[in-house]
Amino acid sequence: RKLDKSRQDRLYFDSYSDVTIHEEMIADHVRTNAYRTAIFRNTELIRGRAVLDVGAGTGVLSIFCAQAGARRVFAVEACSIAEQAEEIVKHNKVEDIVQVIRGTVETVDLPEKVEVIVSEWMGYALLHESMLNSVLYARDKWLKPGGLILPSRAELYITPISDPVVEDRLFFWYTVKDQYGVDMSCMSDFARKCIKNTDITVSSVAVKDVLSHPARFAELDLNSVTVEELRSVKGPFRCESFGSAAVNAFCVYFTVTFPCPGVPQTLVLSTSPSQPETHWKQAVLYLDSPVEVVQDTPVTGEVRMYPSEDSARHICVHVDYTVGQQKTQSKTFSIPDWTPDTQS
Amino acid sequence: RKLDKSRQDRLYFDSYSDVTIHEEMIADHVRTNAYRTAIFRNTELIRGRAVLDVGAGTGVLSIFCAQAGARRVFAVEACSIAEQAEEIVKHNKVEDIVQVIRGTVETVDLPEKVEVIVSEWMGYALLHESMLNSVLYARDKWLKPGGLILPSRAELYITPISDPVVEDRLFFWYTVKDQYGVDMSCMSDFARKCIKNTDITVSSVAVKDVLSHPARFAELDLNSVTVEELRSVKGPFRCESFGSAAVNAFCVYFTVTFPCPGVPQTLVLSTSPSQPETHWKQAVLYLDSPVEVVQDTPVTGEVRMYPSEDSARHICVHVDYTVGQQKTQSKTFSIPDWTPDTQS
Repeated sequence: RKLDKSRQDRLYFDSYSDVTIHEEMIADHVRTNAYRTAIFRNTELIRGRAVLDVGAGTGVLSIFCAQAGARRVFAVEACSIAEQAEEIVKHNKVEDIVQVIRGTVETVDLPEKVEVIVSEWMGYALLHESMLNSVLYARDKWLKPGGLILPSRAELYITPISDPVVEDRLFFWYTVKDQYGVDMSCMSDFARKCIKNTDITVSSVAVKDVLSHPARFAELDLNSVTVEELRSVKGPFRCESFGSAAVNAFCVYFTVTFPCPGVPQTLVLSTSPSQPETHWKQAVLYLDSPVEVVQDTPVTGEVRMYPSEDSARHICVHVDYTVGQQKTQSKTFSIPDWTPDTQS
Repeated sequence: RKLDKSRQDRLYFDSYSDVTIHEEMIADHVRTNAYRTAIFRNTELIRGRAVLDVGAGTGVLSIFCAQAGARRVFAVEACSIAEQAEEIVKHNKVEDIVQVIRGTVETVDLPEKVEVIVSEWMGYALLHESMLNSVLYARDKWLKPGGLILPSRAELYITPISDPVVEDRLFFWYTVKDQYGVDMSCMSDFARKCIKNTDITVSSVAVKDVLSHPARFAELDLNSVTVEELRSVKGPFRCESFGSAAVNAFCVYFTVTFPCPGVPQTLVLSTSPSQPETHWKQAVLYLDSPVEVVQDTPVTGEVRMYPSEDSARHICVHVDYTVGQQKTQSKTFSIPDWTPDTQS
């Protein structure tokens, strides 16, 4: 009798609680460099201005803004990591510029409105446990008209995939007889029920398993989107298969875009499986049974993302999908509900 | 804002709940082959006899016993996996021999006493959430005098190690300035507090990080050990360093031994870092600060393992240790308390 793998990993990772998430975020070069580059490219809009960093964590983005010439940075952070942010700010001698404020952005009082909001608010599948609502609240309350939001746009994509790991895991039970002389093939059905459930799986999708060009199904303009609109983020999609394969899952991922005035191309932080891995990886939604496709088979449908009824911070993803001439199917996924936020 | 790594892994692995633990155990060839070999080597004691499998899981050990000629096997399993065990037994046409009984061994009623008990009861650090108490209960209630217990002995070992990953993680914060131009070295102290806490970490220790021959500090004879004795499993240890290094943790692991009548050597299932990896890996206990050793520096002390006061199924490990001429230090570790058993 022993712990299952999930509990085992909890043992491993929770022994690193608190620091691990920040280490992971700072060590995610795709993420941290995207913000750093975006902030420095916007130096003209930041220099001499007041900036609000929503959910500042260790304060690294706030310090980037100070280095870019901000007159004042309000680093708002609700969790106890704010204490470390305070130390780091002093250590970098920007305490006259960066003010760490412990509290939620909905409750803190700032001495002035700001010209810039910077925030790294994105969660798994973009919206899971995300702070986007808080960023929009901050925007409406504290951002001066025409102010800058970094990032300013978010996009959601979907693509059908063929995940071999899951099929291998189901096949494992057919291999037991050869290994140990006991036929355990009937475990395969049980394994299918356990694995191909309605949970959203966060994992790295290999490019070779992606079966079509991804389709964008939703776009959020951070300058204008409302909290009300976040209650149902949806859109249609159409993908066409690269070749013959068995679709056994959808992959959902996001990008966020930073405006870069005077630079021909915008700066995109992408969590696509075809881009360097980030700590967000991808969201994988397993279908109940694989569907065969050939080259150019259309995979069409609609995705709708909405907060769970049980917990507004939890996201549900509903997918209606049609593969070729087959009839439309539907499945609703969610990220399993865990204990309340452990980050405080 | 996003989930920390522990929650992320929970997302990943809990989507495979139920089946994953059984897949992991069956796929652990070291474990499964040790039991299979032990059962077949004991054919003479099993043939025509009644066997009790305590915590039978998918029933694979019970089927091995049936294949070894048991007249009757009682596969007692409290969790719902018993339903799958029942199916597997039928699938292997041993339903006339193996009787799956859903319930705890403390409450089930068997039609007869048995000559053999087989059980895979070992948890992390041997005793964490282990079923050993249940095996002893079963032994005292259902095993005929002189009966066979597989395995029949368990041993606990300790060895000082130098874990480079943890030191690398602390050093990471010194590298941030070069990467992003922000000095985050002051996070190192916070990281140290988070990482070098009193939690037992379950992870694979590399042989190259082991600093001495391991020392056995406790041995349990399954034929005679009592539940009362399990309330404090302890013993002294003495290790001598292979060479110059910084001890930053202790590694605790176990072996279990199967009697093999008529075979010159016994059969040992070892979870030593120098043996092929098992799903138990090793238990790592981090010291608050590293201690330098040179060749032959003695590392001596005493280990005491006892059930947590909060939860009898949780194990605490107290280590008193002396390195060379330094004064004796003490630290008590435990495996973090999680939600109640998810395996039911």
